Amino acid sequence: MYQAFSAQECHQPLVCVEKTLPKLQDDEVVISVQYCGICHSDISMIDNEWGISNYPIVAGHEVVGSIEAVGAKVTHLQVGQTVGLGWHSHYCHLCSHCMSGDHNLCSDAHSTIIGRDGGFAEKVMAQASAVIPLPQGMDAQSAGPLFCGGITVFNPMVQFQIKPTDKVAVIGIGGLGHLAIQFLNAWGCEVTAFTSSADKEEEARNFGAQHTINSRDPAQIEQAANQFDYIISTVNVKLDWNLYMTTLKPKGRLHFVGATLEPLDLTVFPMIMGQKSVSASPVGSPANIRKMLEFAHQHQIQPLIEVFPFTEINTALDRVRSGKARYRVVLEW
Amino acid sequence: MYQAFSAQECHQPLVCVEKTLPKLQDDEVVISVQYCGICHSDISMIDNEWGISNYPIVAGHEVVGSIEAVGAKVTHLQVGQTVGLGWHSHYCHLCSHCMSGDHNLCSDAHSTIIGRDGGFAEKVMAQASAVIPLPQGMDAQSAGPLFCGGITVFNPMVQFQIKPTDKVAVIGIGGLGHLAIQFLNAWGCEVTAFTSSADKEEEARNFGAQHTINSRDPAQIEQAANQFDYIISTVNVKLDWNLYMTTLKPKGRLHFVGATLEPLDLTVFPMIMGQKSVSASPVGSPANIRKMLEFAHQHQIQPLIEVFPFTEINTALDRVRSGKARYRVVLEW
Repeated sequence: MYQAFSAQECHQPLVCVEKTLPKLQDDEVVISVQYCGICHSDISMIDNEWGISNYPIVAGHEVVGSIEAVGAKVTHLQVGQTVGLGWHSHYCHLCSHCMSGDHNLCSDAHSTIIGRDGGFAEKVMAQASAVIPLPQGMDAQSAGPLFCGGITVFNPMVQFQIKPTDKVAVIGIGGLGHLAIQFLNAWGCEVTAFTSSADKEEEARNFGAQHTINSRDPAQIEQAANQFDYIISTVNVKLDWNLYMTTLKPKGRLHFVGATLEPLDLTVFPMIMGQKSVSASPVGSPANIRKMLEFAHQHQIQPLIEVFPFTEINTALDRVRSGKARYRVVLEW
Repeated sequence: MYQAFSAQECHQPLVCVEKTLPKLQDDEVVISVQYCGICHSDISMIDNEWGISNYPIVAGHEVVGSIEAVGAKVTHLQVGQTVGLGWHSHYCHLCSHCMSGDHNLCSDAHSTIIGRDGGFAEKVMAQASAVIPLPQGMDAQSAGPLFCGGITVFNPMVQFQIKPTDKVAVIGIGGLGHLAIQFLNAWGCEVTAFTSSADKEEEARNFGAQHTINSRDPAQIEQAANQFDYIISTVNVKLDWNLYMTTLKPKGRLHFVGATLEPLDLTVFPMIMGQKSVSASPVGSPANIRKMLEFAHQHQIQPLIEVFPFTEINTALDRVRSGKARYRVVLEW
């Protein structure tokens, strides 16, 4: 028996329930949860924003904890080891995506919080291949958000061959954006932050942005014409995307990790003239999560977090809903 | 003095006028025009479809002819040599794009038909670096369309690393599409043609498409879900782009070389889940035109053309305007 915080129905506070783990499979491990970050997609599932929620739901997919038990065939993880778990808890390991190292694109992958219980609990189970050890010496309390927010902004840097000589920009300085700035700065890039909050400009500079642009001021954006090789958008609201496209150099890329619900309404002709791309991506593969953790540890990249005890999980969720968290909320037992 | 076919004003037939060449610069050559293809962008300039036309205009930018004179500093082209000239007639050679081999993205490049006289004439002048010799033995009559239509569909294959193992599709089997099928087939790809004309399906197969899909039948398109690594769209009308995006595999790319005037209205969420890209590109650099010509010659890739004498240029233009040309129109002296 263990405690878990469960959304019993839509728009109700989570309640603490007693759960029993299912039988441990040979390729699985049990993690004793120490910390769990709150990601906006936890809110999306709890509040049924995507229309796919089946209650009850135990959310939480930025888990850090220690291995409590390993299945019979697990040899690469040991009881007591400090590990993390992100958006995926299971891969098929057989499809062409898995076989190519793109486990994150496996159509049979299980989400940690869809159809199974996630990390807002004392324990969580997952296929061992989805569970990644923390680098020796990494701060465990702040590591959770790296497993979803961190890999989401790091993955496209690998996938689309961002170069240290690139001039890059980050739209939206929040949970994802403040990590994107740090990763891109450590990557060697000259980083510009687009933010609508004047009070975030100095913080963006502290995270490693050399420049900031007020995203509510079209004139400032126009002045940035032809500047960037790569822009990553972390926001989920509609902006004037064609205006942002003008800030790309020829061959530039506007990349989305935030799911705006309104269509992009992109004009083709300027894309043709400048050979520009628009792309999007989800979280990364286990191999890239490992690479991201090593890079983060090497460069002392850490999420800036607000910590709440698990017993205050509903307050913590409201803090994320409010958009006021600076910049990521972590629950601890 | 030489003859040229000039658009004196909008929506009037071209008239034959006498012209005199400007002084030959040290880095320029004069081409004695033998053939010139008609591209839709010639029509766009003649009919002021882009709203940038300043009359009179001598269009024509799919030129094949022989070198008649070379400037004092031109050493790599000889009088009498058979050459071609495409969309660009001049590059700055100094900007970062030119210096990186991306002359086609040079913001100071001159278009052959904007602010200078193009190839609907007995002679045309251009910077020697924009003038490319035909490979030994290449058919001169049909080569003109390679210099714009050909390079436009070949260039993204190089720019975006299309692989012989890729499953690819071509939307629109016209002047560009029938060349795209041939290039992609010779590249080793499995090629599918999307066409709205049932009578083009057999022709698409003859050009090298292994499969055809009726683009007016959404059910057929839905059945092609998750099939393609790369789709190139050559059409300039609005299609259901989000439906076409579903036919891409994860990591797939929908690429535009046809300028649809309506925005793309792309939904972001499926792009995120499948790590998909949308991109667009113009013509290619001189180095890639050279590469394209060698590849076309090696694989006997030729535009299928209808030939008109220059004296029937207005009939020939109407043939292109009608959309009935199979598949490219070439004028000859």
